[in-house]
Amino acid sequence: MYKIGYDVMGSDNGVEVAIQAASEFIKTRKELFLVFVGNEEEIKTALTKYKIDSNRFSIYPTTEFIDMHGSIMDIRRKRNSSMVKVLELLKAKEIDAMITAGNSAAFIAGSHFILGEIEGIKRAGFMPTIPTAIKNKVTLLLDVGANMECDEEDLLGFAKMATVYSQEVLKVSNPQTTLLNIGVEETKGTLLQKEAFKALSSDPFINFLGNMEAREILSGQVDIIITDGYTGNMALKSLEGSSKILMNEIKKELTSSFIKKIKALTLKKSFKAVSEKFDYKNHSGALLIGVDGIAFKSHGSSDVKSWKATLRMTCDAVENDVLNKIKRKAGNF
Amino acid sequence: MYKIGYDVMGSDNGVEVAIQAASEFIKTRKELFLVFVGNEEEIKTALTKYKIDSNRFSIYPTTEFIDMHGSIMDIRRKRNSSMVKVLELLKAKEIDAMITAGNSAAFIAGSHFILGEIEGIKRAGFMPTIPTAIKNKVTLLLDVGANMECDEEDLLGFAKMATVYSQEVLKVSNPQTTLLNIGVEETKGTLLQKEAFKALSSDPFINFLGNMEAREILSGQVDIIITDGYTGNMALKSLEGSSKILMNEIKKELTSSFIKKIKALTLKKSFKAVSEKFDYKNHSGALLIGVDGIAFKSHGSSDVKSWKATLRMTCDAVENDVLNKIKRKAGNF
Repeated sequence: MYKIGYDVMGSDNGVEVAIQAASEFIKTRKELFLVFVGNEEEIKTALTKYKIDSNRFSIYPTTEFIDMHGSIMDIRRKRNSSMVKVLELLKAKEIDAMITAGNSAAFIAGSHFILGEIEGIKRAGFMPTIPTAIKNKVTLLLDVGANMECDEEDLLGFAKMATVYSQEVLKVSNPQTTLLNIGVEETKGTLLQKEAFKALSSDPFINFLGNMEAREILSGQVDIIITDGYTGNMALKSLEGSSKILMNEIKKELTSSFIKKIKALTLKKSFKAVSEKFDYKNHSGALLIGVDGIAFKSHGSSDVKSWKATLRMTCDAVENDVLNKIKRKAGNF
Repeated sequence: MYKIGYDVMGSDNGVEVAIQAASEFIKTRKELFLVFVGNEEEIKTALTKYKIDSNRFSIYPTTEFIDMHGSIMDIRRKRNSSMVKVLELLKAKEIDAMITAGNSAAFIAGSHFILGEIEGIKRAGFMPTIPTAIKNKVTLLLDVGANMECDEEDLLGFAKMATVYSQEVLKVSNPQTTLLNIGVEETKGTLLQKEAFKALSSDPFINFLGNMEAREILSGQVDIIITDGYTGNMALKSLEGSSKILMNEIKKELTSSFIKKIKALTLKKSFKAVSEKFDYKNHSGALLIGVDGIAFKSHGSSDVKSWKATLRMTCDAVENDVLNKIKRKAGNF
């Protein structure tokens, strides 16, 4: 059995949605025990609707929370918040991993203050899995926003940690890594990309293929794409936005007349398949890789689907003991 | 009558494709006279296949060219290249505007050396038009790669020039402008975004709405999106890449069985409509806004559709006398 601390307070959609996701998800993992951290009354009310076997969860009551509208300062101000408490439970090893959908800046700061970094790692990065055009293949993209400004050493650290994650959790034996850049030539980009190219090329632990343009992110050509948090965030949001708008446009066009609607109905499954494949809600969890604890961030507006995706990723990380494997490797990187 | 200098040498697809585009496009603009700059023999051969009224073009023969695989140094080394010559024709006012699909870095350097900047403008930016979810509405996005590193004054300059362009060419009376950033709050982003936010907010000429996330670029909510060249290039390529991959996936899914193929055929027009709307080949021209001349860059792998799109944009810019309007405004910005 392993325990995951689940901050049910932070999301825009409320406690009930978080509990519903948990009640559906917990059936899929026999070893999972959930520690719900948050307002006891709200949790209990939700549990009357979405039942969970009482042997498989506990409640850690808290009185405050830090949601999407919170700030980095809340980590200091709200010592009794669900986010601070779930981080403290992880630090005390009372749980094996944690999940929150609360304010990102507070979560990053709190993770650094409370958990600290893995020895040998200077900065942690947000690492989501990106769905790709290749069936069942995801690409790791990091950092997507934990650090606005990075140096080449940070990017090298991201690449090393992601390599271990890819090997251990995704079972890729020799993960291929690229650097996100505005062109493939090694002279492209700002000083950061040029220096990072050199650092990544010369490290024997990294299977580095060179630069990659943003238009290839969804292609599934590689296992790991390395970038600074500002660039990664920009690229990720562009991808999400254009996918969403394009699917909407197709839907609009196909429902613009009665006849089209009838015809489109017969192809509904096909559209659904593509839209599911690239739906970022199925990939809404991001590991804050580099802090000393398995700490996942779920999307602030997480719905049942998103929460379940994050729960799945968190269980995968725990079951594959990825933190210890990264820590063991960190000394030898 | 106005004259556009057309460097037919630079593209990956050869002279014939460029001439074919010209022969089809020229019928749509009565005032247009084209000056083909490039290898005389190749141009003449192509013209035997794609005929153009001899009163509507001339040939300016050159012996060298700078294609996509060229470098910035070629501007100095290849004085007789079609790119250098077309820039010199523009400088000498023998033509009213120019188009090339050759190497971007060489084109940017050449434009600065030969044409110089508009007085009051420190840096020129690449400004494509981005198709949006709103019918017939395009958004101007700049810079998308002319400058890797910008400061807030550069971004303010881009916003001012784009405002004039939007008013004069796209006929938007009070164009709405946003700053591309990783969040909407004014404290988001790196130092550049924070400083640019202040500069854009306090300038009375700019109708500034604040920050905008990359996921909204295609939404058509605004007229102008301002960014530095590195970020803009990253965002644009993410958009292009994800649109292309998503449309491919849908196609793959819809043709995965005979029955699906038959059903999908009946909806072909609908797909075509959406895929045309967001096809970046229909928006493949980017104005290098800020240099003292109307100088357009077409995609390196321009096909007939792309060349025609760039020709259209170039004619629109000339017919609306946008350069002089920007220059007149530049003093009063």
